[in-house]
Amino acid sequence: MVSANFSIFIIFGLSIISYILTKQMIPLFINKFLSANISGIDVHKASKPKLPESFGVVTGCIFLVTCFIFLPILYSPGSISVENFPHNEFVEMVASLLSICCMLLLGFIDDIFDLRWRHKLFFPTLASLPLLIVYHININSTTVLIPRQLRHIFGVSVDLGILYYIYMGMLAVFCTNAINIYAGVNGLEVGQSVIIALSVFVFNIIEYYGSARKSHVLSLYFILPFLGVSSSLLKYNWFPARVFVGDTYCYFAGMLFAVIAILGHFSKTMLLFFIPQVFNFIYSLPQLLHFIPCPRHRFPLLTKSGVLEPSYVEFSLNEISLIGKICFGILQKFHLIKVYRKDNIKVKCNNLTLLNITLVIFGSMHEEMLTTKLLMLQIICTGIAFTIRYPLASLFYDV
Amino acid sequence: MVSANFSIFIIFGLSIISYILTKQMIPLFINKFLSANISGIDVHKASKPKLPESFGVVTGCIFLVTCFIFLPILYSPGSISVENFPHNEFVEMVASLLSICCMLLLGFIDDIFDLRWRHKLFFPTLASLPLLIVYHININSTTVLIPRQLRHIFGVSVDLGILYYIYMGMLAVFCTNAINIYAGVNGLEVGQSVIIALSVFVFNIIEYYGSARKSHVLSLYFILPFLGVSSSLLKYNWFPARVFVGDTYCYFAGMLFAVIAILGHFSKTMLLFFIPQVFNFIYSLPQLLHFIPCPRHRFPLLTKSGVLEPSYVEFSLNEISLIGKICFGILQKFHLIKVYRKDNIKVKCNNLTLLNITLVIFGSMHEEMLTTKLLMLQIICTGIAFTIRYPLASLFYDV
Repeated sequence: MVSANFSIFIIFGLSIISYILTKQMIPLFINKFLSANISGIDVHKASKPKLPESFGVVTGCIFLVTCFIFLPILYSPGSISVENFPHNEFVEMVASLLSICCMLLLGFIDDIFDLRWRHKLFFPTLASLPLLIVYHININSTTVLIPRQLRHIFGVSVDLGILYYIYMGMLAVFCTNAINIYAGVNGLEVGQSVIIALSVFVFNIIEYYGSARKSHVLSLYFILPFLGVSSSLLKYNWFPARVFVGDTYCYFAGMLFAVIAILGHFSKTMLLFFIPQVFNFIYSLPQLLHFIPCPRHRFPLLTKSGVLEPSYVEFSLNEISLIGKICFGILQKFHLIKVYRKDNIKVKCNNLTLLNITLVIFGSMHEEMLTTKLLMLQIICTGIAFTIRYPLASLFYDV
Repeated sequence: MVSANFSIFIIFGLSIISYILTKQMIPLFINKFLSANISGIDVHKASKPKLPESFGVVTGCIFLVTCFIFLPILYSPGSISVENFPHNEFVEMVASLLSICCMLLLGFIDDIFDLRWRHKLFFPTLASLPLLIVYHININSTTVLIPRQLRHIFGVSVDLGILYYIYMGMLAVFCTNAINIYAGVNGLEVGQSVIIALSVFVFNIIEYYGSARKSHVLSLYFILPFLGVSSSLLKYNWFPARVFVGDTYCYFAGMLFAVIAILGHFSKTMLLFFIPQVFNFIYSLPQLLHFIPCPRHRFPLLTKSGVLEPSYVEFSLNEISLIGKICFGILQKFHLIKVYRKDNIKVKCNNLTLLNITLVIFGSMHEEMLTTKLLMLQIICTGIAFTIRYPLASLFYDV
């Protein structure tokens, strides 16, 4: 088998090729997508242009092709004997690719048919099952370390058993959907994914000389080609976008991160890189669960002067349930929503997304500025994540 | 681990569920497909109805879901310890599902965007690479037995080495495309696949008590749910079709057979079950390679009386190359084409497909009758295959 250093060098080279290939393939497919009517309207432009949708499928396929070419190089018969074959590592790679490929397929189907929510939750869970079996046979650690401050209650560690597998299955569902619902302006889906991937990349490099080197090398095998295809896609999706990436890309990116987190056994660190997504998800919950009325689209709105302003939802306080009232009260108390009261009963508040609350806090702004601000936030959160992961972790754990 | 008998019982049960699920899901998706404009015209009906296309994607997804549910049952932690885990078998299943899932994705993309031929050849080859690595590490037999009559030249067996891997990669490309080009009348794509699957099923059962039991059990794990979803789909695709299955189904079915043949190490037997497809492929070659002019569609034509007649291609003998003339001459000598001569140079002959030559031989007939006749031929070929595989094999090999 080729050495880890050398194999990373190879996948780095293949990733550069995948970057170039993506850059050249996307323009070739734009007309194909438009004539197949796989397209959407860019609502944040005055001319409302029709853009080709679902370009995640092009990047995803180039990602798969890169991995398929990398596999026989990594496990070439010339450099590795059948007796010494690293079965564990190989099955991890194949099961990961299977989960990712399934999500690409599901995402593309979702873009075309607009699946129901239950399918979006059900299918990623199933697609992560082969991966969980691999986790069971290769790693099978379901023990969670308890922070020092709580050890007098729970002990040093707790074995979560089957609950840990349920947690990992939910992680796959969370990652795929969290990126998807934190979208709506040009460049944001791909931009956030590239920053998360870069964060994972830095984390892998830091941990490369640590005890769990193997899982970080595996992570690099996926992160590098992902960065290759995604940074190419970002150029076309950045303001003013020439293509949309679709649910396909969000599911693809989300499952990739979930796979890496599960097999790399660093799901907590991964969730730290997902802070904006976690916030956006929790913040959206009152609307997603219909405690507070949820319109079909919650995107910001384009004003006549060409900037974006938050979108609002209007409702009567007596039409929402008690839980809805409690959510509304809490959000208002912590100044997390902007509320306009028409009278004692009718209210109007911003739709509960990170996009809208950013526009509430910083005021209306240009689309490109909004994307840039949110990506800056993502970078700041990566900084926070590393601070929690390294200096602060010693307050809670014996590092 | 659960016993082979018991696990076959479980997958049999799951396959029945997948049959029922497919039967109930297809009607739910018909309108979704039509409104997403994933549809095609049924040219062999007088009213030219628009039917939803690509239903292979529904059956393929249900097949994947069935397998994903089966995996944790088969390898449940309750019945199998981590130490005794059958890594080889598990990686075979996961790599097979990866290849199949990739082909589903490719097929669906092809249905929507009409890919070029080079993509159709390139992508299945790549998607079979993980499988070939699994073959290398688990089986790694590249030796072919030589028939007795030729042993004085080649010896008892020949080690094909890398050529054997190239052969297997080509098998994947062949199977996916052979089913696809042997299509064009209601029920034929699914019907041929169901008969091939049933033939494989019978072969697996015969060999179940043989020396290679493991690979035949693995084959049953895939063939049973495939039969479940396909026989359900056949009801909707049979004359008069309510849905089309698309390239998606052909690629899915083709890769499934290739996977089973490769890992089951019975590619020669599989090719015997593909006799009509092999004939159709070779017969089509002069047109596919443009030695003889090839129109965009080669389907039979609907006459005013409601029966199908062969479609023809017209050309001048002096516009085709020397190879074209040789092909034409050979086909004519063996009465494999019907030729109308307009003068010494201009000719008209039937398009080179099994569908058209059947209509030439038996005369024009109703669409349902044509499908039935061709499926009868498929069954007869299965009989021939078993005759060659069992009684006749002893003439050539020491059985």
